[in-house]
Amino acid sequence: MIPRYAQAEITEIWSDRNKLELWQKSELAVIEAKVNLNQVTRDVFVKISEILKGAPIDLEWWKKKDREIRHDLNAFIEERVRFLPLELRPYFHGDEELTSYDVEEPAFGQMLKGSVIPVEREVSEIMNVLEGLARKYRYTIMMGRTHGQEAELQTFGKRCLTWYQDLGVDLFFLKMAKRSLKYSKISGALGNYGSIDPKVEKEALKILGFQPFYGATQIMPRELYAPLAQSFCQIVMTLEKIATDIRLGARSPRPIYQEPFAKAQKGSSRMPHKKNSISTEQMEGMARMEKGNSHTIMENIRTWEERAIEQSSVERVVWPDLFHIVLHSLRTMTKVLRGLAVYPDNMLWEVIDSRGCYASGEAKKFLAKKGVPFSLSSEEAYRIVQLAAFNVFEPSTGARQLRGNPPTSLDQANELLLRFQVAPRPVPVSIKDIMLNGELKPSSELEATEANVQKWNEVLRQIFQDQGSTKEFHQIFSAPYLLRHEAKLYQEILGLE
Amino acid sequence: MIPRYAQAEITEIWSDRNKLELWQKSELAVIEAKVNLNQVTRDVFVKISEILKGAPIDLEWWKKKDREIRHDLNAFIEERVRFLPLELRPYFHGDEELTSYDVEEPAFGQMLKGSVIPVEREVSEIMNVLEGLARKYRYTIMMGRTHGQEAELQTFGKRCLTWYQDLGVDLFFLKMAKRSLKYSKISGALGNYGSIDPKVEKEALKILGFQPFYGATQIMPRELYAPLAQSFCQIVMTLEKIATDIRLGARSPRPIYQEPFAKAQKGSSRMPHKKNSISTEQMEGMARMEKGNSHTIMENIRTWEERAIEQSSVERVVWPDLFHIVLHSLRTMTKVLRGLAVYPDNMLWEVIDSRGCYASGEAKKFLAKKGVPFSLSSEEAYRIVQLAAFNVFEPSTGARQLRGNPPTSLDQANELLLRFQVAPRPVPVSIKDIMLNGELKPSSELEATEANVQKWNEVLRQIFQDQGSTKEFHQIFSAPYLLRHEAKLYQEILGLE
Amino acid sequence: MIPRYAQAEITEIWSDRNKLELWQKSELAVIEAKVNLNQVTRDVFVKISEILKGAPIDLEWWKKKDREIRHDLNAFIEERVRFLPLELRPYFHGDEELTSYDVEEPAFGQMLKGSVIPVEREVSEIMNVLEGLARKYRYTIMMGRTHGQEAELQTFGKRCLTWYQDLGVDLFFLKMAKRSLKYSKISGALGNYGSIDPKVEKEALKILGFQPFYGATQIMPRELYAPLAQSFCQIVMTLEKIATDIRLGARSPRPIYQEPFAKAQKGSSRMPHKKNSISTEQMEGMARMEKGNSHTIMENIRTWEERAIEQSSVERVVWPDLFHIVLHSLRTMTKVLRGLAVYPDNMLWEVIDSRGCYASGEAKKFLAKKGVPFSLSSEEAYRIVQLAAFNVFEPSTGARQLRGNPPTSLDQANELLLRFQVAPRPVPVSIKDIMLNGELKPSSELEATEANVQKWNEVLRQIFQDQGSTKEFHQIFSAPYLLRHEAKLYQEILGLE
Amino acid sequence: MIPRYAQAEITEIWSDRNKLELWQKSELAVIEAKVNLNQVTRDVFVKISEILKGAPIDLEWWKKKDREIRHDLNAFIEERVRFLPLELRPYFHGDEELTSYDVEEPAFGQMLKGSVIPVEREVSEIMNVLEGLARKYRYTIMMGRTHGQEAELQTFGKRCLTWYQDLGVDLFFLKMAKRSLKYSKISGALGNYGSIDPKVEKEALKILGFQPFYGATQIMPRELYAPLAQSFCQIVMTLEKIATDIRLGARSPRPIYQEPFAKAQKGSSRMPHKKNSISTEQMEGMARMEKGNSHTIMENIRTWEERAIEQSSVERVVWPDLFHIVLHSLRTMTKVLRGLAVYPDNMLWEVIDSRGCYASGEAKKFLAKKGVPFSLSSEEAYRIVQLAAFNVFEPSTGARQLRGNPPTSLDQANELLLRFQVAPRPVPVSIKDIMLNGELKPSSELEATEANVQKWNEVLRQIFQDQGSTKEFHQIFSAPYLLRHEAKLYQEILGLE
Repeated sequence: MIPRYAQAEITEIWSDRNKLELWQKSELAVIEAKVNLNQVTRDVFVKISEILKGAPIDLEWWKKKDREIRHDLNAFIEERVRFLPLELRPYFHGDEELTSYDVEEPAFGQMLKGSVIPVEREVSEIMNVLEGLARKYRYTIMMGRTHGQEAELQTFGKRCLTWYQDLGVDLFFLKMAKRSLKYSKISGALGNYGSIDPKVEKEALKILGFQPFYGATQIMPRELYAPLAQSFCQIVMTLEKIATDIRLGARSPRPIYQEPFAKAQKGSSRMPHKKNSISTEQMEGMARMEKGNSHTIMENIRTWEERAIEQSSVERVVWPDLFHIVLHSLRTMTKVLRGLAVYPDNMLWEVIDSRGCYASGEAKKFLAKKGVPFSLSSEEAYRIVQLAAFNVFEPSTGARQLRGNPPTSLDQANELLLRFQVAPRPVPVSIKDIMLNGELKPSSELEATEANVQKWNEVLRQIFQDQGSTKEFHQIFSAPYLLRHEAKLYQEILGLE
Repeated sequence: MIPRYAQAEITEIWSDRNKLELWQKSELAVIEAKVNLNQVTRDVFVKISEILKGAPIDLEWWKKKDREIRHDLNAFIEERVRFLPLELRPYFHGDEELTSYDVEEPAFGQMLKGSVIPVEREVSEIMNVLEGLARKYRYTIMMGRTHGQEAELQTFGKRCLTWYQDLGVDLFFLKMAKRSLKYSKISGALGNYGSIDPKVEKEALKILGFQPFYGATQIMPRELYAPLAQSFCQIVMTLEKIATDIRLGARSPRPIYQEPFAKAQKGSSRMPHKKNSISTEQMEGMARMEKGNSHTIMENIRTWEERAIEQSSVERVVWPDLFHIVLHSLRTMTKVLRGLAVYPDNMLWEVIDSRGCYASGEAKKFLAKKGVPFSLSSEEAYRIVQLAAFNVFEPSTGARQLRGNPPTSLDQANELLLRFQVAPRPVPVSIKDIMLNGELKPSSELEATEANVQKWNEVLRQIFQDQGSTKEFHQIFSAPYLLRHEAKLYQEILGLE
Repeated sequence: MIPRYAQAEITEIWSDRNKLELWQKSELAVIEAKVNLNQVTRDVFVKISEILKGAPIDLEWWKKKDREIRHDLNAFIEERVRFLPLELRPYFHGDEELTSYDVEEPAFGQMLKGSVIPVEREVSEIMNVLEGLARKYRYTIMMGRTHGQEAELQTFGKRCLTWYQDLGVDLFFLKMAKRSLKYSKISGALGNYGSIDPKVEKEALKILGFQPFYGATQIMPRELYAPLAQSFCQIVMTLEKIATDIRLGARSPRPIYQEPFAKAQKGSSRMPHKKNSISTEQMEGMARMEKGNSHTIMENIRTWEERAIEQSSVERVVWPDLFHIVLHSLRTMTKVLRGLAVYPDNMLWEVIDSRGCYASGEAKKFLAKKGVPFSLSSEEAYRIVQLAAFNVFEPSTGARQLRGNPPTSLDQANELLLRFQVAPRPVPVSIKDIMLNGELKPSSELEATEANVQKWNEVLRQIFQDQGSTKEFHQIFSAPYLLRHEAKLYQEILGLE
Repeated sequence: MIPRYAQAEITEIWSDRNKLELWQKSELAVIEAKVNLNQVTRDVFVKISEILKGAPIDLEWWKKKDREIRHDLNAFIEERVRFLPLELRPYFHGDEELTSYDVEEPAFGQMLKGSVIPVEREVSEIMNVLEGLARKYRYTIMMGRTHGQEAELQTFGKRCLTWYQDLGVDLFFLKMAKRSLKYSKISGALGNYGSIDPKVEKEALKILGFQPFYGATQIMPRELYAPLAQSFCQIVMTLEKIATDIRLGARSPRPIYQEPFAKAQKGSSRMPHKKNSISTEQMEGMARMEKGNSHTIMENIRTWEERAIEQSSVERVVWPDLFHIVLHSLRTMTKVLRGLAVYPDNMLWEVIDSRGCYASGEAKKFLAKKGVPFSLSSEEAYRIVQLAAFNVFEPSTGARQLRGNPPTSLDQANELLLRFQVAPRPVPVSIKDIMLNGELKPSSELEATEANVQKWNEVLRQIFQDQGSTKEFHQIFSAPYLLRHEAKLYQEILGLE
């Protein structure tokens, strides 16, 4: 991974130095296991481990040898046994019983295990931040949106809860995927032990923190690891989803929230007014990469017979990248969410500018019920509220003209700009008012005829002659009424009463 | 493909009936080629082709035989030779010289060629529609957006031109990819002819509309076809990009354009006010599928030695799906663009509500130039315009309070809603006014100190003491000035003067 | 999915008819839930459900309406309420409270649940078949292969065990992924209930066999389903891995096993001698498609805010295809494995033709130990065995000449063919013999000098002067000795003693 | 890319230092363009370029500034203008007219162009090597294989030709994809020039080696670059295909070719006899990565409106990796092919051990023709040859017994091993002999009855009473006859007569 996105602990864990030290651990664990099983004297183990721990691995020596014999694990063995007196050498690399992957698999398993720890921690961390936001904005109302369109009322806290739960699902699958990491193998060139004593495998793996996977070939089946890569991909895709929501909410000129913008930050070299969503947009790039990477890991399942080495180059490159990207993404988004600029005022303006449509479902339900005595069908109730909604967003005469006749020169465009600039803004009408007053008008965009509309207005006026109905109708547009059940989510998800 | 997205001509081309008829064409072409090369008498060819054309292929018979012998091409041969008298049979299937894929490859090539025709036509069609939009809205000004933020001024026609050019690039690569379709092969089980005369291959392919690909194995190398699938994927991704732009512009409450909404259409069962962007959103689904499909075709390059049959099942399923999806997408988006509801009025409101920021780059440039006598650095010019832009979007006191203290109950939220509803809307200030009047104020979001700001205001006031500068500055915010170079694009792309 | 690969139960489950019946179930469950909560009288529920169950859904009516209003769920509601008397209509579709996906999500969940059942069953079935093979061939020895090269000895039963365990891992993750299917939602347009009583959701979902997922938006988060698609992909990739092993073992002229070949089957239209691996090769095609499909489902995680409809088209197409492919693959491979033609005789010939190399690791270990008194290093032991292995495969003089001078005409090639045909086959020498006799020779492919070789031969002769060593060395090449630990795998995996 | 696979020139081209130098080139080209258009004096340009070329870019200063202002291009500008006297500064970065990507896009284009050069060269190089092999082994006969099964005769030279042509197709598409690289843009924040003079764009791009792409937004459409990534993917997949063929041919105990094995190389730590195909196996890993990478680049087509920055992180990471991988793969495979160990002797043994089946198609054709007087149908000719082929591979009685009764203990397995070791090898019979002598026997694997077989043998004997037929039949099995048309491929592909 390029330095810009690399995460320090991952770089460290996947370094050659660390890998070779883990190889040495595997080798020593096998000797120690034999000591525990009384197959080798403790003295031998103590001597070997003291010598080797006292002689740091010479990475350059090792690399040179690897280039020569084209076998990195054998090069490592040659590097190590240099330091052992002849009589101790046979004890190293399991008395000639081990195959390279008996050493490499436990090391690889430890690299994965070590790298997963910060991922899991950072998922929990970002969930904490989201919980904080959910609590802080529990009563901050906003427009929920489906299909990009303003839909019904919700709180911003509730939106945070849905993000929280998305990550919760991801965390569940991460934990499932992690279960595979408890296995490893020291079972020889074909996984049927050759002359390795299965007891030695079990004991050595125990020392290294693993259980044997029975049924490995020369290597562990890659089916064990693909779900981990997939779980990272899911995490980054959830972060991308959240990031997209933030980008959508950050659109000028009236953002409802924005990723943090540093005081000295520059948005654009050309346009000084810009506050660009660079962190959240980057999440989409990260998701693209993590999708590619996790897909590539999935392909590692295929190999030939008791193994070929197709998977090795991929794992050298893609596993660390998977970890770098998921961690970088988690940390970036934690920063974004922790510093998120939230504008409850603009959220309110959005609610107001939806002109009552946020309660259109309730209005329809109200009408369906109250309309029964007037033989108003449920279908008609739908069409009435739809018409009211189209009426409140009916363009002005000037606007309608412009729609039919776009300008034919830049000068004309400029005149229009100047004219609109000084024109009075239309007073927003709400569907509540239109319905209360029975003031529906036909719309060129809908099918209802003049006669339909007249009849519907008549019914509306009759309904609202009743004071109780009017009061009830007003209530439909109030936040406490509309959000009366949201508390259930806080209760179930965060345990709040 | 499920009926919902299937395209009639693709279903027809990839039907069993059509495939078997194309196989028969391949078989007959080989006989005819031998006639042309004087290896067989014309009489034989005439008889065979009359008999076979007179005896429609019995699909059920063929399917039954295929299940029995598990070889679809051999089953076809058995179905066909039933109708031939014994003496004519040896002439069929190339006197035992052909291998299945000598028959299937030309048929497959013809299916691809036939299916590409409507794709190419539909790309041209959608480009025509986009050209129409570009001409119609050549002077309809709107905010260009980068990072989702309002940036500078452009026309909607120019945005259509960029879409047009994106598809132009795709069309170029589609035409490149199509070039592979001119090749096919009738060169035997290994591609080294066995007892097939290469002259027969050349002649038979000529009859079928192909040239020989020298160097095939039993099959054509799949490297030839992968770019076609990729080119479809690109087309759908470009459509998705356009669709995303439409969705972004369609967001309530002030859409600048929207996909067409039928009069009888229902947006939502629950919310009658909704106009959902279902066609444009579907494009994202189509892109997801086309990415998957094109990736799958790419994998068909790998096979073993002179061929194995890994690619066959994939090509039966994925090629027709690739065609269905690209055609469905093109046709859907052509409908969307042809019926696009465009709101130049709302585009104007967006320009106005950007409060002059659309000219921030020019303002900075102006300032950098005019500031020289006052030792104003280019960096300071940047910071001045940035500050002006932050000033015009400075929240009101009420808003600021709310940002610091979000409501703590739904009742409180409701009160705020009622209060904001009746509050007067703030009068929008433009960066032009702030700068002209030297009325910059410090912003909590930027680093500039009180002293900086004071100095900058002083410089601004001095600059605008000059009438010429003031006039020049006004011009900076006018459409004819800002868009003076856009005509170049119309000239180069559409040939307009 | 095209009929060739479609699986009957999946076609049925994902049919329009079944989907609409499940929608009706969702609708009825909501009414029944309200009965259980005393919000509606049982009488209403009984009447509605009797009427609707008595009036089969008219699919054509529904499709026509869908095309008109472009909303499939609303079209369904209109189709259904046709049959209800006016007074019962308000009870349907949850008294206007439900949004489409309150009906669709439980239906979708049931389609997934129903479709998973045969997948799980077929995985178990194929594992049973593999267990049978593992038991049957528990003592059938063969060459294990790594990097395509003959490695050490194993039994064919043990190879079956590794396949069994690979699928066991897949089954584990399938079961994990399935856990998500216990959730669904009936929580309104934004997932915050609107006027739906959360108790109704809980009760209705219980009737339908689900628990509520708290924190849904309008739809369930797609994070819940991606792992299921991934788990299918893994299964097919494991099958592809097994299929590849079978193809590798089936290579002529000496296959060790082969997929079943029907008596009437034809291998090739051109080449009657062929037994083509068409079923196992098809697995690679299936894996390509399942990779594409599972990747596409992963992309469904992204949507906008409380949902947009990007995922819908994908799910209509890709989910059934995922099921068709995984089931078709499982069933095909079950057939292949159940009918697998196994040739223990050819397995034996392979062991013999490996010329003792199958015990090279043990030989090296033996030498490292016995060589100590002769100051033979472990590295030298390695190089001795390596040299012996190269010696036994040393080409004959004729072969060596030919390698240096490939034929320069086809006539010459033909002469060589005839000459080799009648030449006596070389008697195979084993590394055991070479080492026992101290008959190493230098190899042009290795670095060892004449002097080295001489010295090594000397050491070998000295070692084998000892009768005990000779006997011990002989044992190294025997199956009971080499496979003494394989039983452990049977014990741990199948519980055999 | 990790050092193990990194290619020096790619590392250099994509280094920060080179990128920043290219940015400087873009900046200078804009000034020079203005000089050429008489908008700026040459003196200004000379001074600025001398100063900047004399002051090496301080990478550390730049990185620090980037972290502070979070904008790498602005940080670069600040680093550069430090060195310019105040009066020259306005000329830099296009007098405030440029946007970042007016500088970055030409730089990015140059990085791509520079990186493509070695790729194209290496493709040509490997094609040269393949041409050499095709010429060298033009008359070296071998078995062609379809479905992994021995099929008909071909030369190894011809197999090399098919590989050569596969790469030729890839090269064609690489050249097509490269055509996009001739375009770039300097057209401002939205691509509609703002205050940039389109003449300046054209002139500056000319200096930098580009033409303007009319219709860019702030950035070039990514449709232009995706095909390049795809073409790399195709190349690596073709290499993987070739590598797979080499691995398949390298299988012990009788390899027909093998990748080169260094004298000091170690195949395995455990098994000294191994010659592992590590380079060719690695190609499969490379293909997995390149598939992932090219797919990821494809996704960069999507952005929002006039651009967002989703693509940037991807391009920083994935483009250099794409180049590293394709180059590493090409170079590795060039080494493999250049050093390929080819064994014409073993190829001959394969032909012989196919027992005449290599001419089964010709034999069937022969029989269909000669059988007419005996009323032998074409179908029967097929079944006769098929039966002969099954007869020659009929297992011995011992083998058949073993197939029915696999061993039930390791001791039994060992006894079998010893017994087979000393058993005489069966004398190979050819289908030629069986047919010549009319010695077909029924096979348990085919349907033909005793009566059929008897009748067929009778016909065969009658046919071969004719000396001419016998001679003709013998010829069918000869290389010069069977390969008489292969020369056509050499002629068409390499121009050889």
